[in-house]
Amino acid sequence: MHIGLLHPGEMGVSIGRALDENGHTVLCCGVGRSTVTQDRARTFQNCRTLEELAMQACGIISVCPPAAALAQAQMIRNCGFSGLYVDANAVAPSTALKIQSLFKQQYVDGGIIGPPATKRGTTRLYLSGVQSGAVAQWFAQGPLEAIDLGADLINAASALKMAYAAYTKGSSALLLAVNTLAEKSGVRDHLLAEWAISQPGLAARSEKAALGTSRKAWRFVGEMQEIARTFAEQSLPDDFHLGAAEIYRRMDSLKNSPPSDIHKVMACLIADDDKQEHN
Amino acid sequence: MHIGLLHPGEMGVSIGRALDENGHTVLCCGVGRSTVTQDRARTFQNCRTLEELAMQACGIISVCPPAAALAQAQMIRNCGFSGLYVDANAVAPSTALKIQSLFKQQYVDGGIIGPPATKRGTTRLYLSGVQSGAVAQWFAQGPLEAIDLGADLINAASALKMAYAAYTKGSSALLLAVNTLAEKSGVRDHLLAEWAISQPGLAARSEKAALGTSRKAWRFVGEMQEIARTFAEQSLPDDFHLGAAEIYRRMDSLKNSPPSDIHKVMACLIADDDKQEHN
Repeated sequence: MHIGLLHPGEMGVSIGRALDENGHTVLCCGVGRSTVTQDRARTFQNCRTLEELAMQACGIISVCPPAAALAQAQMIRNCGFSGLYVDANAVAPSTALKIQSLFKQQYVDGGIIGPPATKRGTTRLYLSGVQSGAVAQWFAQGPLEAIDLGADLINAASALKMAYAAYTKGSSALLLAVNTLAEKSGVRDHLLAEWAISQPGLAARSEKAALGTSRKAWRFVGEMQEIARTFAEQSLPDDFHLGAAEIYRRMDSLKNSPPSDIHKVMACLIADDDKQEHN
Repeated sequence: MHIGLLHPGEMGVSIGRALDENGHTVLCCGVGRSTVTQDRARTFQNCRTLEELAMQACGIISVCPPAAALAQAQMIRNCGFSGLYVDANAVAPSTALKIQSLFKQQYVDGGIIGPPATKRGTTRLYLSGVQSGAVAQWFAQGPLEAIDLGADLINAASALKMAYAAYTKGSSALLLAVNTLAEKSGVRDHLLAEWAISQPGLAARSEKAALGTSRKAWRFVGEMQEIARTFAEQSLPDDFHLGAAEIYRRMDSLKNSPPSDIHKVMACLIADDDKQEHN
């Protein structure tokens, strides 16, 4: 099968390779993308325009920043695409429903949990919708495990992704914020000493949260906003993830550095405070 | 020594017993307190008025809801008390400074970490201030371990307590909120299945958070507000703990029930949503 991939970022490339391992031809379109993404797209079959891609593909999978997911889907719809459209992005279930309304029965909701997949067992692509079983078959073997949640709840995959990331990325942001609060208050050594007694593991988790999020924080901001929206739409407090969005926003300058340790992350969160105060 | 205890709630009683084990006479004052607290006060030496207590005690330790800490201190100040005043409450460092201004050099800041102390090793009373060493001596032996942080930072004990509780109680509230989001979105079974693969321990931690917080949630609300204030005063996002305050507020009806499991807590968080929607 010819399957379109929008777009081959780090995660997207791993999905493209998984499709490749399953014998599919992966179509990309580098138009308007960064040089890095265009280079990655060369691994796959390049289309000159989105229209060409939409014409040749019988299925399309969208892997892009959450804020771009709906516009991406609309562009594809405007190309007259009539195949299966999989939105695998970290979007609120209500955003998923908006995309579903463009493709009706041809829409499959997706949610990726885990890092870019290199070996089976690390990463799962959850799928829901009328044709989720068909999409799961695209990934029958290889590094990415597709899990079919069925059609009972059209946007189950997005709801699951939101709830999952709400705790993992939310608690990491909270932990970075707490370390920074203790540092700025002059009591972080005391906090680490108390954690060593009663919360063993939190100091190590703080280090891991810093190293693991610092380069990706810039793109977590939109995801935290989608999660906040998900909470609000279920009449639950959205505050946690508005706070997490602010923590990750302050870290966006770490994007192009090597992974930053907790001291660099704290300095960055504090420096941003100072910047705000002086403005 | 005669030491005043304001007031013998669950935590206060354990502190009174620790003072008792160190050979001190513990003074209480039941005036205006609940019957339960008055009963507890009978374990110790009862004073008819706060003035009488302030006259007889050479030290006073305050263990009360954070919102009452400053008013409590002012009442004692108005009694003309001139001994050591220890505020051991979960208050923002700025609140600690306000109390310090009432007692100057006689003020010792405190922060309790751990459950009501029954055996040594579970619970620590952190102390800071000019005379923190003297107060630590009140607890030289027995179930409560006093840790003297010295006088470098007058309100270090409160700052430490805020940072510590910010993660423990903040992440518990987040976890309860995430479970409820998944439940209300119809994907909690899927979330538990994914957690079993990639976040082992989170399902058990959810159960534990429900059982452990349900009866105490009502009094965590004020503590979350003090923590939010602490973040704001350090130019860090206060949103996490405004969200946590709202979660614990919705749980206040569980105060007088036996510890509630995660299903009861989720039902309570959802029922409160419905109530708000219908208002």
